[in-house]
Amino acid sequence: MNKKMYELGSKRSVIRELFEYGKEYAEVHGKDSVFDFTIGNPNIPAPHTVNDLIKQAVDNPDIHLYTSAEGDKEVRKKISAYIKKEFNADMPVQNIYMTTGAAAALSIVFKALVDEERNEFIVFAPYFPEYKVFVEAAGGVLNVQRAAENFGFNLEGLEKLITPRTVGVIINSPSNPTGRIYSKEELSHLFEVIAKRSTKEKPIYVIADEPYRELVYDDTEVPYIPNLYDNSIVCYSWSKSLSLAGERIGYIAVSPKAQNDRELFLTICGAGRALGYVCASSLFQYVVSESLGLTADIEIYKHNRDRLYGALKEYGFTLIEPKGAFYIFMKSPLPNDDFMKIAKSLGILFVPSETFGVDNWVRIAYCVSPDVIERSLPHFKKLAEICGLKKE
Amino acid sequence: MNKKMYELGSKRSVIRELFEYGKEYAEVHGKDSVFDFTIGNPNIPAPHTVNDLIKQAVDNPDIHLYTSAEGDKEVRKKISAYIKKEFNADMPVQNIYMTTGAAAALSIVFKALVDEERNEFIVFAPYFPEYKVFVEAAGGVLNVQRAAENFGFNLEGLEKLITPRTVGVIINSPSNPTGRIYSKEELSHLFEVIAKRSTKEKPIYVIADEPYRELVYDDTEVPYIPNLYDNSIVCYSWSKSLSLAGERIGYIAVSPKAQNDRELFLTICGAGRALGYVCASSLFQYVVSESLGLTADIEIYKHNRDRLYGALKEYGFTLIEPKGAFYIFMKSPLPNDDFMKIAKSLGILFVPSETFGVDNWVRIAYCVSPDVIERSLPHFKKLAEICGLKKE
Repeated sequence: MNKKMYELGSKRSVIRELFEYGKEYAEVHGKDSVFDFTIGNPNIPAPHTVNDLIKQAVDNPDIHLYTSAEGDKEVRKKISAYIKKEFNADMPVQNIYMTTGAAAALSIVFKALVDEERNEFIVFAPYFPEYKVFVEAAGGVLNVQRAAENFGFNLEGLEKLITPRTVGVIINSPSNPTGRIYSKEELSHLFEVIAKRSTKEKPIYVIADEPYRELVYDDTEVPYIPNLYDNSIVCYSWSKSLSLAGERIGYIAVSPKAQNDRELFLTICGAGRALGYVCASSLFQYVVSESLGLTADIEIYKHNRDRLYGALKEYGFTLIEPKGAFYIFMKSPLPNDDFMKIAKSLGILFVPSETFGVDNWVRIAYCVSPDVIERSLPHFKKLAEICGLKKE
Repeated sequence: MNKKMYELGSKRSVIRELFEYGKEYAEVHGKDSVFDFTIGNPNIPAPHTVNDLIKQAVDNPDIHLYTSAEGDKEVRKKISAYIKKEFNADMPVQNIYMTTGAAAALSIVFKALVDEERNEFIVFAPYFPEYKVFVEAAGGVLNVQRAAENFGFNLEGLEKLITPRTVGVIINSPSNPTGRIYSKEELSHLFEVIAKRSTKEKPIYVIADEPYRELVYDDTEVPYIPNLYDNSIVCYSWSKSLSLAGERIGYIAVSPKAQNDRELFLTICGAGRALGYVCASSLFQYVVSESLGLTADIEIYKHNRDRLYGALKEYGFTLIEPKGAFYIFMKSPLPNDDFMKIAKSLGILFVPSETFGVDNWVRIAYCVSPDVIERSLPHFKKLAEICGLKKE
């Protein structure tokens, strides 16, 4: 047996571990006694339109058949047109590959980009921990650069990390776990640094992981990365925007301005095939192609963010205001082990930041029902008091 | 970029290539001018019950959420109970891992079983060609043994192929491409040979790839492999039985009698995680768990088999009578290149056997509508005549 796979299977991701703990705790103590802020499992239901589309679609006798490995052509045409309309970017049909969610998209892209000579990826911490799992499974190495203050890009640090073996830089905006959205200016500075070191022989690709693109508050702009950097690959998912996390539907889009985009696309097709991805769900390919631009009721997340962020600040916690996604990143007032223990004893579950590559913060996933937020507040208040925090 | 992945993506599987060719041909010349017997894309629609279940299920607001990585517990409980009832075999819930179809199941199992020391798998030819792709992507080696006469197991050949590096033998019954079902007696002889060489330190697992289990004619028995060999792993899919090929839903079941079954299961969980499989579609997990024992209308396949097998035999072709799956394996009366060319010129598309590891046969997938069979017969007759075959 493969020892590394055994390790990955027996020591589950901390997030999944806490998710399972929460489910068991709820089974034993009742659903109301646990405030589970661990996993990004969207609590807002999928839009009615999506479910109506599903109901209609299943009456089509061809709906459950295999599509082409890269996805149904009509579906990809619609996505291509949507990208043109929404971002004013050319993304030809033959550069779009439908995937079984963003995890599949990332795994496939890493597998495609790694070869013997060039196998290093760079990410800024805090970062989504499965990047490391997927990169390493593809035979690559993930190099981690601590973010700058306020979780911006640390450009000096990045420059030092780039080597001739570097093949990709991962950008996740809106960010999991910080809720940070990078501005056009920040991104342009970053891409300048990367472009300086990217050559025709050894291009450095930017991998834009964008499952939270539509989960944005206060009218913050989320720049479209292929408009700012040529060698870019977008990994997208409808898990969060349409609350379809369990259905696993997303895509990879290779910028037509990327070097050797055709070769890269075919390599992506090969990697998908090698990893056992035959095609993305044919039903959900159709459903998302008919729901472009639609989202679940994001006002609920905004309400949750406002309520929880406001309250936590009031209780004296240090945290950054999330502009997107559905996470609050909060500084731990005690060493994380102690802080987590006290929180757990109050029935509050969140994820320690060590799993995202930085110490002594926690991630609070507020994609729960507003009622859970409301009922949790006295417990958060107590948590602040136990930790000796002063109100603002 | 990864050269091997580029190769896999640019030289697509012959089956997929012909599938795409058929689609393009139909687009240009009209649907009725092509008789596409290339791919196992079930033409019989999914049962009404399945589509009704989907329609009901989407009204449950939790239906699209992530499940546990190994699958929803209630779903797995039902599958466990079904296996007990149907095969009188114990398959505990914690030994069942829901997958994105059989391709994912196989990819995950190969990835789990390969380590540095032991990485060889054995299969009998003709065999499903993606085994090689998945095994090699996992870092393994696929050793191929030509089947015995009538496509039975070649035991002497197998014995010679087993080395201390052998970790698995793949069994596919009913078989793609031959439609062969192995009897209990045949399997027992095979397992005797394998068991002799399987040790506690170096167990040899049998991987039972069973997407065609329910597609069986003439009341032929398909023995349940975990009842005959302890170190067995079943890879199952509902792609064919429920005509859900595009939805990608299946499972891995590790026999509880397998050595270190717990460790093996956790390794499988790790491999699934590493390959980017977050969970199998939550909607389809639910749907299949409520449809256990149900199949699409297999009488249509039986009709097709009877009609096509009878006619081809009458036209003078040499072929074996398929007992299961939806393929006819037919000897080419000419060198395959020539035979394929003539068939193509008559609008008939099937898959050359070279892709399955043997020369000068072809695979005819008869999972098409009876009308296509009927209209194709004059063309097959002409094909026989051009090849100079005599009627029986």
